[in-house]
Formats: sequence, structure tokens, C-alpha cells
Amino acid sequence: MAWEASTVAAVRPLDLTADPVDLCAALVDVPSVSGEEGALADALEAALRAQAPHLEVLRSGHAVLARTDLGRPGRVLLAGHIDTVPIADNVPSRRDQGLIYGCGTSDMKAGDAVFAHLAAVLPDPRHDLTFVFYDCEEVEAVRNGLGRIEREHRDWLAADLAILGEPTNGAVEAGCQGTLRAEITLRGRRAHSARSWLGENAVHAAGPVLERLAAYPAREVEIDGCRYREGLQAVRIAGGVAGNVVPDECVVTINFRFAPDRDAAAAEKHVREVFEGFELEITDLSPGALPGLGAPAAREFLAATGAEPTAKYGWTDVSRFAALGIPALNYGPGDPNLAHTRDEHVDPARITEALDVLRRFLG
Amino acid sequence: MAWEASTVAAVRPLDLTADPVDLCAALVDVPSVSGEEGALADALEAALRAQAPHLEVLRSGHAVLARTDLGRPGRVLLAGHIDTVPIADNVPSRRDQGLIYGCGTSDMKAGDAVFAHLAAVLPDPRHDLTFVFYDCEEVEAVRNGLGRIEREHRDWLAADLAILGEPTNGAVEAGCQGTLRAEITLRGRRAHSARSWLGENAVHAAGPVLERLAAYPAREVEIDGCRYREGLQAVRIAGGVAGNVVPDECVVTINFRFAPDRDAAAAEKHVREVFEGFELEITDLSPGALPGLGAPAAREFLAATGAEPTAKYGWTDVSRFAALGIPALNYGPGDPNLAHTRDEHVDPARITEALDVLRRFLG
Repeated sequence: MAWEASTVAAVRPLDLTADPVDLCAALVDVPSVSGEEGALADALEAALRAQAPHLEVLRSGHAVLARTDLGRPGRVLLAGHIDTVPIADNVPSRRDQGLIYGCGTSDMKAGDAVFAHLAAVLPDPRHDLTFVFYDCEEVEAVRNGLGRIEREHRDWLAADLAILGEPTNGAVEAGCQGTLRAEITLRGRRAHSARSWLGENAVHAAGPVLERLAAYPAREVEIDGCRYREGLQAVRIAGGVAGNVVPDECVVTINFRFAPDRDAAAAEKHVREVFEGFELEITDLSPGALPGLGAPAAREFLAATGAEPTAKYGWTDVSRFAALGIPALNYGPGDPNLAHTRDEHVDPARITEALDVLRRFLG
Repeated sequence: MAWEASTVAAVRPLDLTADPVDLCAALVDVPSVSGEEGALADALEAALRAQAPHLEVLRSGHAVLARTDLGRPGRVLLAGHIDTVPIADNVPSRRDQGLIYGCGTSDMKAGDAVFAHLAAVLPDPRHDLTFVFYDCEEVEAVRNGLGRIEREHRDWLAADLAILGEPTNGAVEAGCQGTLRAEITLRGRRAHSARSWLGENAVHAAGPVLERLAAYPAREVEIDGCRYREGLQAVRIAGGVAGNVVPDECVVTINFRFAPDRDAAAAEKHVREVFEGFELEITDLSPGALPGLGAPAAREFLAATGAEPTAKYGWTDVSRFAALGIPALNYGPGDPNLAHTRDEHVDPARITEALDVLRRFLG
């Protein structure tokens, strides 16, 4: 359907000064599945250059960055990915019963719309501002546009507070939990199952591993007023050779989601202690991010929202900022439960609310 | 390599009256991988018709049957499959250090050679005799030649004792154990592993199943002087959706090998008791065969061997005879540990010994 796509891509120029509710719909109408954000990045870049002459604009691949340079004592970075998961018959956008439906409405073009609008209408903000509209958040971490920007334009990521517009339903979700994956391998000795006493069953040997998982007392911990909840789960188990063979190998893949008061090394140490006596190999390990709500800019932002922050359980790009020493939090008008669904939509009231909060904080 | 195969297939006529050691080598030299036994069946049929005129001969597919009709009070059936597993650079046969090497030497052309020799040289046996040289034992049960003969020529399988020439190293292995396979399904509820408390882990739920398997006290039982040893094993386990998802299903496949004093229904009942409380589906169930050593013909045969019978653990075609109410046992000169190996061979001394035993019993 290349013809349709290019028709849609030949979109009217974006009006950043319009109501962000309308801007959200306009952003959804430019398809931008991961890797194919070129047309939307072009439109955003053109609009920023034309409608926000007070900003320095940078193009990086399918990402667009813009910033003030007003010599303010602090800098706030507003970041949103502009890519979406694959379209599911839900582009262009449509309005129904007061809601905006379409691919990327919640995750996270509603947040992008608020940020892009602020870029155009706040020439004189209280903090210096950096806007980052980036690509490929919905795919493998290695393709993530923020990673490329960090490698090629690291100075553009400097800030005292980073706000990611990921869908949080207007709540402030602080920091994020880390994630660790490991494979536990049980070994045995093959034998014909008719003479099973000559073998040693590796699948049976996985019983104690599963018992430890089932009995695991997952920790909850409060950090900066946010309650984090850990989890240790088997996400896969596989063993077996044939229907008449005692299996000689069984692999249990586990996933540990850990609160950000454990760093990567502490998380690994803990998992190795839980499974002491078993052969365990770490296959994936991404540290979490502390909420960092003690930072002055974060406290100011919280005051503007008037809401209690909560913990972010999933891993998000806030941890990239945390790794750079920048307090980061998730705050967006989208609904996280609708992300990646065919029925994805957003409530315009949330968009207006986010605009009001950020205007109060920055204006 | 079709040219080589047909060269080998254009074999000299088989001499059934020759030393069965030489006959074994001649049988090995006619390739007969399952489904391709035609040339060997042709050669056996021609030899039986020419060299054993006292026998009624029947051709059924790639199987050849022959029998006496002397009005003896009892009938002994000697059965051997003539197919082999795929050739592994081990045809034609070769002699080395007094042993015969080649595909099918042990499993079970050595036994076939003894039976075919007896067919030609025992015109006046003590019992009426039926010889069954059949196809496709080494493949799926549905292709097994004995099954076809049972459906199409059931009267040919009537006997007071059946002896299968499967490799037993000259031991008498009586009856066989049954085999049951079942799938135990654990169910849970999917959730993102970052919010694992919203889900229910089906893999963790398999822990108690594996514990029961590991703790299972396998029964040993003596029947007709044969010691049977049961076993209950997980032969496969599988569960998992993705690296960040709490799995909602896990399946443990178990294999129960049971002594022939349990029939199929009793075996199923036992397994359902062991896993009471779990969702369990039987996927495969083949009853075993009682040794039947109390039958007069079996007692006579045991006396001729002078050996103590032992239990057959694996499932063999003896259970087909048991299902017809015919006592059946495994007795052959091949070595079961060499079956299906590249290095397969047979000791000529075992062939001569089997001939002597059967001659003593039948002659």
C-alpha cells in the first residue's frame, strides 16, 4: 500500500500553535512505524524551524531536537518517541464519543503534541528547555534513537530533569525497575525411558528451581515516596529429547525485575544467591533508574502536578538518563493499558491537563 | 546410489541349508531398510518355495510366511522382522576378528538366519511350526507388517507359543512392559513480567508435578520368575511466551513404563492417582505382555535353553501376540546394545548356540 502511505505522508504542514488535541490527531495521521519516521520527522523539523525561531534545531536521523539557550540556572528536557508499533487498521485518526482513536494516540503522540506545542508557545520559559522527538523506541534497544543521540550529540542530552512523555494517564511515574534474565541449566544423563534407572532426569531436577521461584518472597521497597515491587519469574522452560528418552538437559529462563536501589551487580548477586547450587548464566541485564525526586527541578514539577509520584515498574528510557546522572520521570497523557492495542485511543481532557501542568511548571 | 543398490539386490539365491552364520551374512548383504524389503522378501520366498517344499508359503506385502500342517498337538511360531534401520556405511557385511559386522546383523538378521535355516532343515518337527519374516518393525507402529498380517491373515498367527528373534544375547526375555504417555497441562494467567503480581505463573505451577516425579517410588514386581522394573519419567517440558511475559501454560509430557501385571486401564488409573489434582490427558497407551511362561510350550522351551528367563523392559511385538492370547517371548542371538549402531555386529557363536537350543526344542 505504498501509494496510500505517500498520500498520507504528503501531509499539510503541522500547526504547533494549535490546540494540542488537534495536533495529536495530526501527528497520528502521519504514519511513523519504527524505522519509517522520516515523513513525520520532516514535518516536525519544518514546523519547529518555521514556528519556533527562538529554538536551535538539530536533525539526527529520524529524530528532531530543539533547545533554548537563555542562560537559565536549570534545564528541563522533554522527550518523546515519535515511532509507533505497526498500524492495525487504525490510521488515520478518528474521533468518537469525544475520544481520539488511532495508532500511537496514547503511546505517545499525545505527549509529543503537548511537548511540540510548548516548544512553539513558550519563547521565555522559566528553565532552559530541550525537546527531543526521537525514533525507534518500540524496537530492539540497539536501534533506539536516544542511544544514537547519546553517542553522537551527547551535549544535547544535558539537563537537570528529564521528562518522558510515555503514557502514564497523567500520573508521575518515577525512575524505573531494572531487569535481569538468566538461564538455569539442569543436567542429567540420557537413557531409554524403558530403562530409566540407567539415566538421570534433568527435567525432574528442575523441580527445586520451580519450588524456589514459587516460594520467592518478592520484596517491596519505598524510595523517594515511590513504592517499587520486585518480581522473580520463570518466563520459559524447555527440556526433552524424545518421547522414549530420559532428558539430559532442561533450561529454565528467569526474569528478575528489581527495584532501583539495587544496581546491576547487586541484582546479579541476589539472583545467584537465590539459586545457589545451580548452574546459572546471566543473558541480559539492564539496571533500573532511581526516581531522583529529591532534585530541585523534580520537586518543582511535582508541586505543579499536585500528584503523588508512583513507581514505574516497566523498564523505560528514563534509565538512559539515570545512567547519565540526570533525574528522569515518566509523565504523559496517554493510557498505558491501551498502548499497542488495536483500540488505542486518548482522552483529550488528559492532553489539556498535561498542557496545563507543564505550562504551570515551565511558563 | 541406486546403481549400487540394485547390484547388491541382484543377489545369489539364498542357501537356507547352509550354516546360519553364512546365511546371516547373506541376509545382511541384501539391503532391507524399512519399506524397502522387497528384494529380500523375494529371495526368502524363492528359497523357501525351492528348499522347504514341506511348508505352505504365503506372501504378504514385503513379508513371507511359511508353516507346517502336521497335525501336531501344539504349534510354535518363530517371528523375525527383516527390515533394518537406515544403512550407515555398513553394508555389505564384513568379517573381522571372527565377528560379522553390518547393518541388521544383531537386529535381527542373525535371528532370521536361524529361523530360515530351521524352516528348511526341520521337515518333521515335534511341534507344528509357523515362520513369519515381516517388514517395517523399525518404523511407526501403523506400518508394522505384523499388524497387516493380523488384519489380513489372522489364522496364520495362531500358535501356542511365539518366539521373536529380537536381540537378547541368547537370553530369554519374557513378556514386555507397557508404555503410557500423558500430557499434564498447568494453566495460569499472562501478565507483563514487570507486573508479575497481575499474572499467575504456569511454569512455577509445574514444580509440584516435577517433585512428584522425582519422589515417585518405582515399583518392582516378579512375575513368572521375571523381575519387572517400572519407571515414571518426564520426557519433555515446555512453557513460555516471551522473555517479558508471565507464562500462562506449561506442559509436562510423562512416560510411564509399567509391568505387565497392570493392564492399560490399571496403568491409566495409577497415573491419574499419582497426578491427582492436575489436568492430565493420555496421548499414547500400549499394554505390556505377561511373560506367559506357565504355558507348556514355554516351559519346554525354557528347559531347552537351560537359562533363567528375565524381564523385557522395552515394548516389543510380543505384546501383539499377548493381545491375541498367545504366550510370547524374545530370544535371539543378536546383542541389543549394538542394535542401531554403526558398529553393529554379531558373534557367530551366539548364532550357533541359538540354532542348537531351537533344534533341541523343536527337533
